Formats: sequence, C-alpha cells, structure tokens
Amino acid sequence: MPDSSAIDFTVRPIGHVASALISTADAPRQGDEGAPDAYLILDSAVQDGLHGIAAGDEIIVLTWLHEADRSILKVHPRGDLSRPEQGVFNTRSPSRPNPIGLHRVRVLDLDGRSLHVSGLEAIDGTPVVDLKPVLGSIEDR
Amino acid sequence: MPDSSAIDFTVRPIGHVASALISTADAPRQGDEGAPDAYLILDSAVQDGLHGIAAGDEIIVLTWLHEADRSILKVHPRGDLSRPEQGVFNTRSPSRPNPIGLHRVRVLDLDGRSLHVSGLEAIDGTPVVDLKPVLGSIEDR
Repeated sequence: MPDSSAIDFTVRPIGHVASALISTADAPRQGDEGAPDAYLILDSAVQDGLHGIAAGDEIIVLTWLHEADRSILKVHPRGDLSRPEQGVFNTRSPSRPNPIGLHRVRVLDLDGRSLHVSGLEAIDGTPVVDLKPVLGSIEDR
Repeated sequence: MPDSSAIDFTVRPIGHVASALISTADAPRQGDEGAPDAYLILDSAVQDGLHGIAAGDEIIVLTWLHEADRSILKVHPRGDLSRPEQGVFNTRSPSRPNPIGLHRVRVLDLDGRSLHVSGLEAIDGTPVVDLKPVLGSIEDR
C-alpha cells in the first residue's frame, strides 16, 4: 500500500468558538489549567445534529487549531527548552500535521445552536469540527 | 460573523490502519466491545513525530472514517430503531459532517513507524489523521 497521504479529505467546520481568549499567547495549555468558559456557535445547517444534548452533559469538542504550524514534528514539551524534544504525537502541542484540538468540556447551557461550555482553552474564532458525547459504561450506551 | 463553513481545511492522513476487520458490517461499535488488536502504519514522512512513544502508553488515535455518510444529522442510537432519533453530535455514529473517529488504545509494541495497538474498531485501510497522549494529572504534564 502506498503512503496514505496520497488521499486528502476536506474538513468543513460546523461552527466556531466565541471566547474572551483572543490570542494563543494568552491561552492556557489545557482546559483544566484555568481556561475560561466559552461558547460554541454552531452553523444553522447542522443544528439538527445537536438534538438530545442537554445542560450538564460532558462532551468532547474537536476543533481545528487554525494558527498551528503543520510542518513541525518535534517540540519541547510545553515549550520548556530544558525538557528534551518529543515527537508531536507524544504531546498535546497544537503544532502537528493535522492540528485537531481535543477538548473535554461540560455543557453549562444550550440555546438553539449556541452552547455555553466550561473551561475551553481554544481562542475566539477557532473553528469547531465535531462534537461527541463522553462514553459511559457499556451498559449505558 | 458569517457561518464558519465558509472556510474549509485539508486533512492529510499520516498513515492507515492495518486490521483483520475488513468491513464496517463486522466492526464492533466501540473499541471496548470486542475489537481486535490492530496496527497503525505511519507514513515515513511523519515518523519523527512518534519520538518518545513507548510500549505500554495509552494514546488517542484520530481517524477519518472514510466510508461514513457526511450528510446525516440524526440517527437512531446504535442503529436501534426502537430508540428515538438523536442528533449525531449526541452519538458516536460514524455518520456526521466531519467523520473523525476517536479511539483510546494501548500501544502493545512499536517498531519504526508501525504501532501495534489494542482493541481498535476501525476497519483495515482507515486513514489515521492524528495521535495524542492520554493526559495524566496536571503535575505529570
């Protein structure tokens, strides 16, 4: 089989983040490191996909970290030059070939196609590409 | 702000799944529901990104579920017609606008750019788009 990169796919954002975080320089590295509550504003075309999500639910938000450098394969973890370089796939650095952000948040409130969520480290305007429920035990699925 | 879908992004797979699972009809719905061990074969161009990953590590694998129907916004959970329809963002259905698969697996062995991993429900040939470590406690990052 040839290298898989022969076939590309198109990600079409389903919405965006609305947040008081304006710059990646101000953003915490992870949601549980002091990130502010924020809003996910979904596009009207995909609003039906939210059916069943309720306040209190824990969800996984996938974003496209649009300011990331996709050419980087090794980084110093957390930007700390005293730590040896690691492959980006062994870190949560936004720099990586496909800069997909993974965020576990709680839905605080939901109004139409706008979701208010807890602790999100993505900056204002970050494209949202998918939402998924956090899976419970096998019996509850 | 206009609907975010005005701007698309290109996902370039970093590798693919090699598995005994050939058809989605045979695939379990989740990795912990009897999915077989499988291999992730990374492209040589991104091999440096694996640096630091070791046997025993728990990682998150993001795939592109290339056989999914991207136009579907509501489904019966687990294909069970007796359960009321839910928005796809409230399910783990592969059908969704951006069919990104999220899989938590353990690295059993690693040889160059090939990773042997536990319980993966993605079928043979599924494009792999990202790998991330499972985050430990804040002190361990």
